[in-house]
Amino acid sequence: MQPLKLNTLKLVLFTLTIFALSCKNNVENAVAKAPVIDVEKHDIERIEPLNWWVGFKNNALQLLVKHPNISNATPHVSYPGVSIKKIHKADSPNYLFIDLIIEDNIPAGKFNIVFTEANKTDLVYTYELKERTKAAEDFVGFNSSDAVYLITPDRFANGNTTNDVNTQLLEKTVDRTNDYGRHGGDIAGITKHLDYIDDMGFTAIWPCPLLTNNMPSSSYHGYAMTNFYQVDPRFGTLDEYINLSKKAQERGMKLIMDQVANHCGSEHWWMKDLPFKNWLNQQDTYLKNKENLFNSNHRRTANQDIYASKSDKAMMSEGWFVPTMPDLNQKNPFLATYLIQNSIWWVETLELGGIRQDTYPYPDKDFMSDWAGAIMHEYPNFNIVGEEWSYNPLLIAYWQDGHKNNDGYDSNLKSTMDFAMQAKITEALREEESWDGGLVKIYEALANDFAYARPHDIMVFNDNHDMSRIFTQLKGDVTNTKMALSTILTLPRTPQIYYGTEILMNDFDKPGDHGLLRGDFPGGWDNDTVNAFTGEGLTDAQKDMQKYLKTLLNFRKNSKAIHKGKTIHFAPKNGVYVLFRIFENEVVMHVLNKNEGKTTLNLERFEEIGLQGKTLKNIMSNQTFVWNDVLELNQKGSFIFLYRL
Amino acid sequence: MQPLKLNTLKLVLFTLTIFALSCKNNVENAVAKAPVIDVEKHDIERIEPLNWWVGFKNNALQLLVKHPNISNATPHVSYPGVSIKKIHKADSPNYLFIDLIIEDNIPAGKFNIVFTEANKTDLVYTYELKERTKAAEDFVGFNSSDAVYLITPDRFANGNTTNDVNTQLLEKTVDRTNDYGRHGGDIAGITKHLDYIDDMGFTAIWPCPLLTNNMPSSSYHGYAMTNFYQVDPRFGTLDEYINLSKKAQERGMKLIMDQVANHCGSEHWWMKDLPFKNWLNQQDTYLKNKENLFNSNHRRTANQDIYASKSDKAMMSEGWFVPTMPDLNQKNPFLATYLIQNSIWWVETLELGGIRQDTYPYPDKDFMSDWAGAIMHEYPNFNIVGEEWSYNPLLIAYWQDGHKNNDGYDSNLKSTMDFAMQAKITEALREEESWDGGLVKIYEALANDFAYARPHDIMVFNDNHDMSRIFTQLKGDVTNTKMALSTILTLPRTPQIYYGTEILMNDFDKPGDHGLLRGDFPGGWDNDTVNAFTGEGLTDAQKDMQKYLKTLLNFRKNSKAIHKGKTIHFAPKNGVYVLFRIFENEVVMHVLNKNEGKTTLNLERFEEIGLQGKTLKNIMSNQTFVWNDVLELNQKGSFIFLYRL
Repeated sequence: MQPLKLNTLKLVLFTLTIFALSCKNNVENAVAKAPVIDVEKHDIERIEPLNWWVGFKNNALQLLVKHPNISNATPHVSYPGVSIKKIHKADSPNYLFIDLIIEDNIPAGKFNIVFTEANKTDLVYTYELKERTKAAEDFVGFNSSDAVYLITPDRFANGNTTNDVNTQLLEKTVDRTNDYGRHGGDIAGITKHLDYIDDMGFTAIWPCPLLTNNMPSSSYHGYAMTNFYQVDPRFGTLDEYINLSKKAQERGMKLIMDQVANHCGSEHWWMKDLPFKNWLNQQDTYLKNKENLFNSNHRRTANQDIYASKSDKAMMSEGWFVPTMPDLNQKNPFLATYLIQNSIWWVETLELGGIRQDTYPYPDKDFMSDWAGAIMHEYPNFNIVGEEWSYNPLLIAYWQDGHKNNDGYDSNLKSTMDFAMQAKITEALREEESWDGGLVKIYEALANDFAYARPHDIMVFNDNHDMSRIFTQLKGDVTNTKMALSTILTLPRTPQIYYGTEILMNDFDKPGDHGLLRGDFPGGWDNDTVNAFTGEGLTDAQKDMQKYLKTLLNFRKNSKAIHKGKTIHFAPKNGVYVLFRIFENEVVMHVLNKNEGKTTLNLERFEEIGLQGKTLKNIMSNQTFVWNDVLELNQKGSFIFLYRL
Repeated sequence: MQPLKLNTLKLVLFTLTIFALSCKNNVENAVAKAPVIDVEKHDIERIEPLNWWVGFKNNALQLLVKHPNISNATPHVSYPGVSIKKIHKADSPNYLFIDLIIEDNIPAGKFNIVFTEANKTDLVYTYELKERTKAAEDFVGFNSSDAVYLITPDRFANGNTTNDVNTQLLEKTVDRTNDYGRHGGDIAGITKHLDYIDDMGFTAIWPCPLLTNNMPSSSYHGYAMTNFYQVDPRFGTLDEYINLSKKAQERGMKLIMDQVANHCGSEHWWMKDLPFKNWLNQQDTYLKNKENLFNSNHRRTANQDIYASKSDKAMMSEGWFVPTMPDLNQKNPFLATYLIQNSIWWVETLELGGIRQDTYPYPDKDFMSDWAGAIMHEYPNFNIVGEEWSYNPLLIAYWQDGHKNNDGYDSNLKSTMDFAMQAKITEALREEESWDGGLVKIYEALANDFAYARPHDIMVFNDNHDMSRIFTQLKGDVTNTKMALSTILTLPRTPQIYYGTEILMNDFDKPGDHGLLRGDFPGGWDNDTVNAFTGEGLTDAQKDMQKYLKTLLNFRKNSKAIHKGKTIHFAPKNGVYVLFRIFENEVVMHVLNKNEGKTTLNLERFEEIGLQGKTLKNIMSNQTFVWNDVLELNQKGSFIFLYRL
């Protein structure tokens, strides 16, 4: 058959929805109880999504069916309120895509999809429509009241040594001597140490991807997925992942899933038999003549640039991220639907508190808007943060939902990442103070907020799993590192901190080296001599930083002024930068002091805050002072003072 | 009397307009001929504007009357269609402000304003309403079809030595040995060399301010005006200024006036007797206790910053630019009207082709919007460029009319200045090529155009009268200087070039020193041994650059592709950055090549431009080549190729 002409995903969804609405009345008197399946059958090699739910706003579901020569068969369903709207053949005979309509208000249950073919035995697949266990509005995404702990799961804690070796997978074993090998960290390790993370004051965790990366090497990082519906057995099981989410939620913590729509791993199961001729970008080249394959030009501005050549735009979005990560063609509407449904499946299955989407500017940007829009449509209070690694506030602004873009683009993306602020904080702390150097870099970066739709929904951080650790960026200066941290934790932002920051983990030996900066968290392995969870073996400096962050994070947890207060800041002067966060009767005063030794801060300049005569408390030392003419700062560093009525 | 309560300028204008409309019918049968004044009288010390015109869209005119104890007098007018709407006393008894209404369709002419006071002789002032000589639509402002020549008048050419010494002014004489003294350049000098400027291919001139700066020192730069209605006698006369404009217009060139709304010079005539208690910012402090006067904090982001403290905002806009330049308080509605009318007076008197407004972010920003709006309302095809010295594209975008600002601010300003691009071009040429260094800086800066309302209306430049000359910025590298120039002359922008760039003028001795970089143009003085106008005594390198710019500017003059063509560029690769401008059947290809020696450029990448088999001409060498597989570039530098059907 001819390859399907590419329609936009929107058109497909729209058509399905219209169809669904037109069907609605026909089933209003449908039997309210689901038929009972006596014996479940799974004659088909693969149907995805693995299951679905009743009660979504979008009534359409498209099943990917993979089975030898399945395109010759005709599927049938018999379930009240479930009907087949359309059946699509693919380019490969081993796939079928079935458009189902799931009516409103039908019962959850199982039904058989029966595939018939002349002169052949029927194939039967028992498919489940589950009951949703949580109201859509209760999927509340991370926000500026949260502090997110970013974890490289392979390197955090090995909670279950029995999954370390897996002979079914290409990278079979652990090797802690190899920075790019697997070290054995897993979901059980994170779950085991939720106590620690919670105690530290974090309210959300973002583990890097936990799905199967059955790649011959470097599979530890998780970004080369070979199965979008399977937890990597070396990280654990789906039940363990669900359990992690439940345990986190019991503590009021949110679980953020790291997803990748741009690419898969070259060992992805579908690479051996791609459904369509255009499932990948440069698919022909890859299949026939790999050496002509081109990588992305990584010219991310091409997404917005009104002057970008067609070839640069194509090189950007159709180029492969790396040769081991096939670049998915989201313009194929079946792939688009596949990815959207996959994301929703994980949100619903794990009761997620957010998604972090990798390499945001690399997939087709219209698809990304559809993708985010579809998720946010189902979960209005959810949150998604997209990774655009750009220091340009124009791009940060562009990608955030609600920004008035000249080209009319609406990303549907609530949160973007503040690489601009990240860079400016580091510069500010590394530079000497001057008219346009030092702390003014933070002041001016924050002044850019006027251009953002919702600054507090932007995620800020000092480092992450792809860049030199903040302690390394700041050349091992503990005071500067505290200043960097207190800054991100008091700004009108959603802060993220990389695991191990609290114990001064670093990559001094090879700054920026991925394998190294994703180092093992001490105490995560049974035989570790140092244990950061218990404090055993930590240096005084590490203990001090751990306590510092713990105090600050636990303070932040309850500070509405930081979560949603208004912000007033004063241009840095004489090496001191002061920022206030104010909500109702709480005022948080954040002071960055670059001066060594005692510094007298004249308070007259801050008169408009209205704290004259009030008593403020240093949240670190618990010392108080009465707001008068001056404030004595005893040393270089950051100071956080609290006034509460 | 009590000081007037401050109303916004808008309210005043609105009220006057409503009043004017309500009066309209009463004068429809007025005598169509103006009464004749037999003997003109000027009993009043000063009335400003010096005259006005009939036929403006805005029927309101506010006269500033300055005369000893004039506040005790009552003014009367008798002229068909002219009436006094309101008389305002000021804080000083020596001022009156008279709101006049000038009806539509009344004849031009003169009339007496009679000031009566009990037991005193009437004072009479003959005021003129002139006929407008040019249709409002014919005041066409500079635009992207222009190339603007920026001149420091004192340093360009001394066309009239009789005005060099003026004993009536504080800085009486010329001293060419002093970089900060007056050198004698004047309006006559510019007029005399219009031939040269025109031949070079410039289509607009922007002389720095030519109004009286009666300051004790450094009066040559012109930015400390002491009379907003007077041409500095050392620069010439009003008639000479008008003549310059006429002579320029005869050649199809536009005259841009450099105006300053933020401040005046401390020797401004009104400083001895300020009309209101709030005519200046910090007026009390200045009058009573100068040492407490504060300068602007120059934190220009405070204008947009949603978190800026009130005190920082006030320090920005109420701080003085420098202590010798009193900071005008444009929130005083009389001053606001004064400044607006002054600008319109000059547009109309000089038949201007544009205004350059100094220190744009320093005055009250609502006033600046009213100011620009009032001018653009009268002259719909005019242009104004505001100087915001910021490298931040967010601010460049914010100030341009048509940008969708979150705070709803509409600047009414058609053109802003591209300091961001200026800096990036220099960086690009100074840096080694790398993934994120070198030419990619220009590519990415241009990619930011997606965020601008109208990129081609933004003024771009390599240097100006306040910064190190481009030849100095580029460390004396002629090739790099040509690359910088060809870049600004082919981008979708309105380019400005500083006088002397064409002969490699520089400030190597003290980079960035204002007096030095505003050096004398050789040949501008009778006894100069080198004459850049004739070429006499120029070095080969200077002659070469002069010829280069002349060729390029004259090409640009007729290139619709550069004026208004669409832009397509390709990310720099192997040290080569290619940009196309395309309009109808003209294609201009701009190539920046950083490689020393011969370079082979593979043309396959540019296939989408559709030039296969076409013949292109190098506009410098006139050599042609047929577009085939590759293009050989014989050396480092910029290349401009033209294809015309």
